[in-house]
Amino acid sequence: MGTRTLDVSVVIDPERRERVTAALIKHGIDAVICTSASAILLLTGYWPVVGASVAVVSAEGETHVIVPEDEVELAEQSSQAVLLPYKPSELARIITPIQALTKPLSSLTTRLGLSPAKIGIELDQGMQPASYVTSTDFRSSLPTLLRQILPNAAFVCCSEILERMKASKTIKELHMMRVAAQVAASGFATAADEIKAGRRETEVAAALHSAFQSSVQAESVQRSYGFFFCMSGPNSARAAAAYARTRQRKIEEGDLVMIHANTCADGYWTDITRTYSAGTSTDRHDAMGAAIAEARTAALDAIRPGAMAREVDGAARTVMTSHGFGDAFRHPTGHGVGFAAANGNALPRIHPQSPDFLELGMTFNIEPAAYVDGYGGMRHCDVVAVTSDGVEVLTEF
Amino acid sequence: MGTRTLDVSVVIDPERRERVTAALIKHGIDAVICTSASAILLLTGYWPVVGASVAVVSAEGETHVIVPEDEVELAEQSSQAVLLPYKPSELARIITPIQALTKPLSSLTTRLGLSPAKIGIELDQGMQPASYVTSTDFRSSLPTLLRQILPNAAFVCCSEILERMKASKTIKELHMMRVAAQVAASGFATAADEIKAGRRETEVAAALHSAFQSSVQAESVQRSYGFFFCMSGPNSARAAAAYARTRQRKIEEGDLVMIHANTCADGYWTDITRTYSAGTSTDRHDAMGAAIAEARTAALDAIRPGAMAREVDGAARTVMTSHGFGDAFRHPTGHGVGFAAANGNALPRIHPQSPDFLELGMTFNIEPAAYVDGYGGMRHCDVVAVTSDGVEVLTEF
Repeated sequence: MGTRTLDVSVVIDPERRERVTAALIKHGIDAVICTSASAILLLTGYWPVVGASVAVVSAEGETHVIVPEDEVELAEQSSQAVLLPYKPSELARIITPIQALTKPLSSLTTRLGLSPAKIGIELDQGMQPASYVTSTDFRSSLPTLLRQILPNAAFVCCSEILERMKASKTIKELHMMRVAAQVAASGFATAADEIKAGRRETEVAAALHSAFQSSVQAESVQRSYGFFFCMSGPNSARAAAAYARTRQRKIEEGDLVMIHANTCADGYWTDITRTYSAGTSTDRHDAMGAAIAEARTAALDAIRPGAMAREVDGAARTVMTSHGFGDAFRHPTGHGVGFAAANGNALPRIHPQSPDFLELGMTFNIEPAAYVDGYGGMRHCDVVAVTSDGVEVLTEF
Repeated sequence: MGTRTLDVSVVIDPERRERVTAALIKHGIDAVICTSASAILLLTGYWPVVGASVAVVSAEGETHVIVPEDEVELAEQSSQAVLLPYKPSELARIITPIQALTKPLSSLTTRLGLSPAKIGIELDQGMQPASYVTSTDFRSSLPTLLRQILPNAAFVCCSEILERMKASKTIKELHMMRVAAQVAASGFATAADEIKAGRRETEVAAALHSAFQSSVQAESVQRSYGFFFCMSGPNSARAAAAYARTRQRKIEEGDLVMIHANTCADGYWTDITRTYSAGTSTDRHDAMGAAIAEARTAALDAIRPGAMAREVDGAARTVMTSHGFGDAFRHPTGHGVGFAAANGNALPRIHPQSPDFLELGMTFNIEPAAYVDGYGGMRHCDVVAVTSDGVEVLTEF
């Protein structure tokens, strides 16, 4: 990343704090009040587990999180925000998180003088990566509560401001994404040995997930988990869908076998795909592989601060078309990655019609691919970051 | 389940259709329009993957789902709803799901004559199990869109109606939950062999997850995935928290080792815990185990249609207290399970202050436990169903 270096504890992120403050001031917003896990991670460094936390960040940079008491330890180790513990449930009475939040949220917003005020809340559609087995969905209950306790405040949607901020990572966040990529690599390291004719997709996916989950690289991470998918033969041709799916199919000699993973390290997500040949590679595999490798190089070469995202897509698409795989490359070349795992609308959109410009620190995937119905699909998906002089591939393995 | 038998394809669930229609008529609601994955599973049998689907169900029982075209295959295999495919994203233009939904949702609601009408939508706080790596969160965008396209409709919150319906399962849903429990068992089957002094919690969790994911029992399931957690020694004492967490700790001889799993089979979730001794059991382990086994039996004996949920909690709690573990049993005895994995507010709440009555077909967990700070925790968590003459334990292993 040129001359930018990480010289502070990973808990402290002054760069992010400055950006948040600047964005709120620019939009005339006095404070944002957020509940989505990825927004709280962005604003505070803490990635909520069950999603019952509320972050309140003022334009002066005062950062508070009302947090379930059993998540305080995790929050302390990842954030410098002022933590206000609460009990979302009790043995002495039946209570829901929104009921339990009323008093601490009312106290905090009063103390911060947020009425009258212009307050940003999340109203627009978004995507959330899984932060746990299950997570709290506040739906309209938080806006309703806020309007009750702050009747003189004006509420505006801050979703777009947050999404724009998520696109470019700070030095600390880039560090976390490199860690996430290193941990993810430990799953892929076993792939060539695990993929064999006769094995089921489920068995291969299980073996890679296991290697990932028990990796020593994860020792520096508090919460490391994710998903590995295996799609073989004709199933790999269906991987252009918006989701991956491992099935019971037995791998056959000569199959293309696609391994797709979304893994996270403390809330920072990766999006990685590699494709293997079961047994000996064929001429057809080689032709697809050559096109994809060349498209990848063309895309990487087009990445620099100030470039248009659609030029990057165009660079990859032109190569795929020249190799006869234009129609087989059915999706955009990439999308923002980091705070979201798989979200085609995350900025920057490396899409043929994208209006987005690339900026220093933006992270996204580059995923040239070819899907041939009934035969197989090949995709190579890396996570990359825009550097001052070009690009850093975070998943160079 | 007494004389209730499953004599139809699992795709067809006339019992659920009747209950939905009856609930809408009872509350004077003309239709419900839902986007949460667990609500769509309840209403249609289809468990959306990336959460960009919308179910529209009328009080006459007409059931439609507007579904991403790449999820049609999964929806067809699990639901009899009329499927209306749409493209949430395109290569030809930048578009978001809510934009892409506008036209099909407008056409469908017009065709169904839903303006003027009383329409139920999800507004209250809830919890959603992870349906994929990442999922769509519509936040306020869907209510806003609906008010635009149906200006003469009245919108009411249907969250509570849905939550009450989720509590009691139909014969088909109970069948799916038994399948889910059988698949989950394949992970636990390997636990006694995998838990050894010197192994890390991460390694044990990875091994059990792998056994689960590659289990042959999952062959009848389209989407089988979930989470296994391992917490050993002092870490097991912290398992009273609202979430489980696997750490890097190495298991020591004489540790209590708690294995917790939330797994799903096509959207139907389990919530299961077993506790093991690393090496030879100790007198202290035996004392905790005896109390928990007795509390479990007392709770199971109290389950029958018409019983109060708090009597079941009281039965378990009285036993734990009589063994000196009253204070160590820090959470309720259980909560609803099936459409949610781990949600303490899912009905019925087996909580000391619960107003809930048990009904035929209700499924929940029974999880007596003792947590001793700094030493260890023991929990035995089963999923059970209320039968006409008592209880069925779905996780009898």
